[in-house]
Amino acid sequence: MTPDDGFSHAVDRMWAVVPAGGAGTRLWPLSRAGQPKFLHDLAGSGRTLIQATVDRLTPIVGERVMIVTGASHEGAVRMQLPDVSKVVAEPSPRDSMAAIGLAAAIMERQDPAAILGSFAADQLINDGDSFAACVREAAAVAATGLVVTLGIRPTFAATGFGYIEASEPLAGFPTATAVRQFVEKPNQETAERYLATGAFRWNAGMFVVRASVLLDLLALNHPELAAGLRRIAAAPELLPDLWPGLQKIAIDHAIAEPAADLGKVAMVPGEFDWEDIGDFAALAGLQQGAGLKVLGQDHLVVGHEASGLVVTGDRDIAVLGLQDVVVVDTGDALLVTDLAHAQQVKEIVDLLKASERSDLT
Amino acid sequence: MTPDDGFSHAVDRMWAVVPAGGAGTRLWPLSRAGQPKFLHDLAGSGRTLIQATVDRLTPIVGERVMIVTGASHEGAVRMQLPDVSKVVAEPSPRDSMAAIGLAAAIMERQDPAAILGSFAADQLINDGDSFAACVREAAAVAATGLVVTLGIRPTFAATGFGYIEASEPLAGFPTATAVRQFVEKPNQETAERYLATGAFRWNAGMFVVRASVLLDLLALNHPELAAGLRRIAAAPELLPDLWPGLQKIAIDHAIAEPAADLGKVAMVPGEFDWEDIGDFAALAGLQQGAGLKVLGQDHLVVGHEASGLVVTGDRDIAVLGLQDVVVVDTGDALLVTDLAHAQQVKEIVDLLKASERSDLT
Repeated sequence: MTPDDGFSHAVDRMWAVVPAGGAGTRLWPLSRAGQPKFLHDLAGSGRTLIQATVDRLTPIVGERVMIVTGASHEGAVRMQLPDVSKVVAEPSPRDSMAAIGLAAAIMERQDPAAILGSFAADQLINDGDSFAACVREAAAVAATGLVVTLGIRPTFAATGFGYIEASEPLAGFPTATAVRQFVEKPNQETAERYLATGAFRWNAGMFVVRASVLLDLLALNHPELAAGLRRIAAAPELLPDLWPGLQKIAIDHAIAEPAADLGKVAMVPGEFDWEDIGDFAALAGLQQGAGLKVLGQDHLVVGHEASGLVVTGDRDIAVLGLQDVVVVDTGDALLVTDLAHAQQVKEIVDLLKASERSDLT
Repeated sequence: MTPDDGFSHAVDRMWAVVPAGGAGTRLWPLSRAGQPKFLHDLAGSGRTLIQATVDRLTPIVGERVMIVTGASHEGAVRMQLPDVSKVVAEPSPRDSMAAIGLAAAIMERQDPAAILGSFAADQLINDGDSFAACVREAAAVAATGLVVTLGIRPTFAATGFGYIEASEPLAGFPTATAVRQFVEKPNQETAERYLATGAFRWNAGMFVVRASVLLDLLALNHPELAAGLRRIAAAPELLPDLWPGLQKIAIDHAIAEPAADLGKVAMVPGEFDWEDIGDFAALAGLQQGAGLKVLGQDHLVVGHEASGLVVTGDRDIAVLGLQDVVVVDTGDALLVTDLAHAQQVKEIVDLLKASERSDLT
């Protein structure tokens, strides 16, 4: 697993950071605030999403894996990943910049030349070798001082992701390019135009950067946040006191977009299959077979003139005469909808929160 | 509750027999072989169907109520109806003629002039006074030696019920008529023709007849069955031995149709509201409100852009973006279908029986 690609020097200084947050409300009631989607085996592979993420990173970085998660999930994460020793628990959610920035500040103190690669806990990637080659090249590019993002090959004109626009190839690297800009989720027409140019890739939020470069870039626009994170890394006992005062901001806005404006962002195109599993339609797409697909225990499901997705709990489920239906059975809550309404499932969660049933969310 | 209609003499000799059988497979998983529909409060009234049936009969016949049910339901029936002392348990299902015929033979021994009224345990009738008036007139007609059926006013061209064709009014009674014929469930075209004539009524299987007339009519075509039933009534200890050898036949074929051919059937038209609740579409029609109707606990259901029927169990249920959906939640099984497939629910039961899950049926 150490190909002679000339990138070993860089990748040997790299830490993989896995931010594990977000309730995944469009996957309710499977995914909850207390049981978010990264803790579930949504691919039916026998490994949860966060386990599969770490499985994919270990051949690249060995034991240099750090998970940043909410305090309420620390126990579940440690249980699922007993071999990962670095689990940082956030006292409260303060958005992605604080979570990843804290990881950067911690590793910067251990190795001033440390490289940080950030990979979300809830994405699916099938081709581990292709992914590893991409990350190794990204680490080598990051060693030169750039922020390097992984660009996902778009397979359709998606309106649910942001895009990265590539510009010139980067000299000295096999596939890396400079980045002209990051763009927000487009409308359908714009997404189709992006796809037609061939210059745009999906932004999956995966990036690689030297830890000190990340923090120095952050200090340009958000000096108090950068200083706060470095103080906590120097004196971890201050975490509970300082954390609540940190600015809440997404890393895209705090780092990626300003760095792109400064011409400091590169992209390495990923050619591996990638899935976000944002909703039950995506989840249905992952399951084998036709007709009524089952995630969980096949023997519990009887379908008759039916198609769609059933996620089983512990009871028998019969589905009769419905097409593209979605049935999700859990111990205390049941969802019945269809694939066309998959994006609206979060509206159910909003309704439950607005009523007195937020215990179910 | 004893109107001066001149029928008190007849009705004072009447026993109400409530045959309580049939699994109600089109209401699976709510209704099961082990928990048939008559044991459920399908109307959401606070009383189960069999309790409501007895509630409706008590003002007419007092304590002269006899329930004939399967041995496996005897316990549940006695629990739900502690005031009914006469519960006859059939060792095994032998169709309606044996069940009702046994009741007739038992009461014939107690009172040779006894009148038997048979009323299924799983029908809904709202207007108790109108029903009582109808039954009282039927008892008086039955006292003259006729088989009297109650004719339900058809509210649409139903293809799910048999029909009764009336002929001349019966002299000396306010509403009774002679009956020309019973006809089987018609096709749509025929049903519409029936409705247009004004002479046809739905056959709900409710009838009133002198017990000895019933048994004598039975003896004409099925002498062994009539004799067997009278033997059991004379020596109840023979029930377990004789019962399995009795002929299996529906009372419509054994009595009603032959008696009509002999000109011995009358009909009293019922003007009360009547519901059979044969499937979930009928059940949905009974519930109040529009949109997503709930049978059970309203607070467990969140509907959003949804309509249809939810039968709650003990869990929260969210329904999103589906119209005319049917969701039935029970402890061990869940059904998801729609109103258009209500009649096909029995196909699910057949599939379960054919697989190794007949425990769920």
